[in-house]
Amino acid sequence: MLLATCFESLEEDYWHLRTHVQVWDVSVQRQVQVEGPDAHRLLQLSTPRDLAGMPVGKCYYAPLVDERGGMVNDPLLMRVAEDRYWVSIADSDVLLWLKGLAAGLGLKARLSEPDVWPISVQGPKSGDLAARVFGEAVRDLRFFRFAPFRFREHGLLVARSGWSRQGGFEIYVDSGKVALPLWDALMDAGKDLEVRAGCPNLIERIEGGLLSYGNDMTLDDTPFDCGLGQYCDMEGDFDFLGKGALAARLMARPPHVMRGLLLDCPRDGFPAPTRRWTVAAEDGGFAGWATSACHSPRFGRPISIAMLGEQHAGLGMRLRVRLEGGAVAEAEVTTLPFPDPPENRHA
Amino acid sequence: MLLATCFESLEEDYWHLRTHVQVWDVSVQRQVQVEGPDAHRLLQLSTPRDLAGMPVGKCYYAPLVDERGGMVNDPLLMRVAEDRYWVSIADSDVLLWLKGLAAGLGLKARLSEPDVWPISVQGPKSGDLAARVFGEAVRDLRFFRFAPFRFREHGLLVARSGWSRQGGFEIYVDSGKVALPLWDALMDAGKDLEVRAGCPNLIERIEGGLLSYGNDMTLDDTPFDCGLGQYCDMEGDFDFLGKGALAARLMARPPHVMRGLLLDCPRDGFPAPTRRWTVAAEDGGFAGWATSACHSPRFGRPISIAMLGEQHAGLGMRLRVRLEGGAVAEAEVTTLPFPDPPENRHA
Repeated sequence: MLLATCFESLEEDYWHLRTHVQVWDVSVQRQVQVEGPDAHRLLQLSTPRDLAGMPVGKCYYAPLVDERGGMVNDPLLMRVAEDRYWVSIADSDVLLWLKGLAAGLGLKARLSEPDVWPISVQGPKSGDLAARVFGEAVRDLRFFRFAPFRFREHGLLVARSGWSRQGGFEIYVDSGKVALPLWDALMDAGKDLEVRAGCPNLIERIEGGLLSYGNDMTLDDTPFDCGLGQYCDMEGDFDFLGKGALAARLMARPPHVMRGLLLDCPRDGFPAPTRRWTVAAEDGGFAGWATSACHSPRFGRPISIAMLGEQHAGLGMRLRVRLEGGAVAEAEVTTLPFPDPPENRHA
Repeated sequence: MLLATCFESLEEDYWHLRTHVQVWDVSVQRQVQVEGPDAHRLLQLSTPRDLAGMPVGKCYYAPLVDERGGMVNDPLLMRVAEDRYWVSIADSDVLLWLKGLAAGLGLKARLSEPDVWPISVQGPKSGDLAARVFGEAVRDLRFFRFAPFRFREHGLLVARSGWSRQGGFEIYVDSGKVALPLWDALMDAGKDLEVRAGCPNLIERIEGGLLSYGNDMTLDDTPFDCGLGQYCDMEGDFDFLGKGALAARLMARPPHVMRGLLLDCPRDGFPAPTRRWTVAAEDGGFAGWATSACHSPRFGRPISIAMLGEQHAGLGMRLRVRLEGGAVAEAEVTTLPFPDPPENRHA
């Protein structure tokens, strides 16, 4: 399955997303459904996040790890019914991973990929748009909560979530009959809000510090390598796959810190990344990697998400990024999400 | 990862592939490497094909099944060293499936995806082209065997295999440094053979009865549903995942038979399939599915691969295919691979 990366241009899409509201077809964000008496046990075995007491109606961001503690995926988990979970996945396969695990462990859990094709409504006007289509009550939905709403006669799950920092909703469309009418209704209702079709925006998600599976984390990284330590309950009295390996890797190497980098580099000389770039300290020693990068129109310079050793992650520190092609750019360490620029060049 | 589906046109590519030689970039055909003391055990648990005595140097076509006996993939297995296997996969994920299985079972097997990017050389002149680049010895390679060959100073595995019926080789390129020089060498050496870039061809593979994962088989089909019963050793004294479930499904329903269908249908009225089409017997009863279809230039009419109940699979039987859009086409059952047409309109 494919996902659009750009509609007008990265920058036009970026400003529009920050200003108005967009509707994204994120069907690619598959749901892996886990059902049966061992469903909870299987999910708890697959993540270091403590799932005890996970209620129906709440989204849990949860790193999934393999037997070595490496990141398999960073999905949202949703308990959609007492005995039924959805794993709303990022860019890697989870269905066959969990199937394999369940089969190997002999767990009673049915794994499937239901016909669910999410639509994401993102942007500062997303509340207004969602309220026009689903009613005012949708505004009361708290962040990372979901609930059933009605579109015409059809019930749909709607979550306050989405892969941007502009606020929004994800609508779990579970019927082909509803998809187009819903899309059209959103477009019609949002005309005066300047709604348009969009997609996750590279610039916005890097500025917002939203990590991307395959770029900012891979099977070789532990959750602690990519700043997700807060979702790992190593002291909890539950077991998960790779718990021992993860503890051993933590002992051997302190967690990385995910930071923003502001690069001193003309836009013209800035190559599009196709892999991670190494980052060096001022003394030339290895400091970490730049995992995702783009030109930021608000900062007027290239920015990057970086995975840094903690001694190199101090705010304001100066580092050197080895760009593809061999050029080296000076860089300054900042927070993730990126702070607002000192002078916002557009707004 | 993406795979090209067409270069000039489906038909031009088809005639060229049947006449000359093509070089395909099939990097998408990932290798899943299985190593370690339990590597053999893990692979044997994942397939109903008996792997006892599998030698280094031979390719095994092997259905992989899940705990319900459903098709996970239909890869080539290659034992590349005594304790190292490659699973050369079709269009679904196998790395995370086998990783999950190994983790769940606590097997000592390391799973990885090595940097291997296969190039396929296919067509009746493939032997000539391969001999010019790898030396005459490559002609002695028997079907479904592989061996190390040299390109300049670099050793590469070359197999007599490939996803066409025109004969050819698959070259397991394991270095980015070699890939482009090898491609260029094949193109240079093949100029007088009319070599060109190509890709698996829909028409050729349907006529040749080469099944495609995701179309002619899915997780819902057993190997017996898609004509792969010959690769299932149900009587063997080895265990595999889903053996009991597969036996039970076989008891409940006799194996399907994979056949060719010759459709009576004008080319203009023939829609491109986006899903399986149902096939009915002359009395209107359910007969099976048409799983892949295209227009055949040699037959001058649409053809299809069909998954049929055995009572509906007699050669020459008349069936009815419900095309997308609602039209119904009469069809005649024939063998798979398709026989040569009575009069070959082009050659």
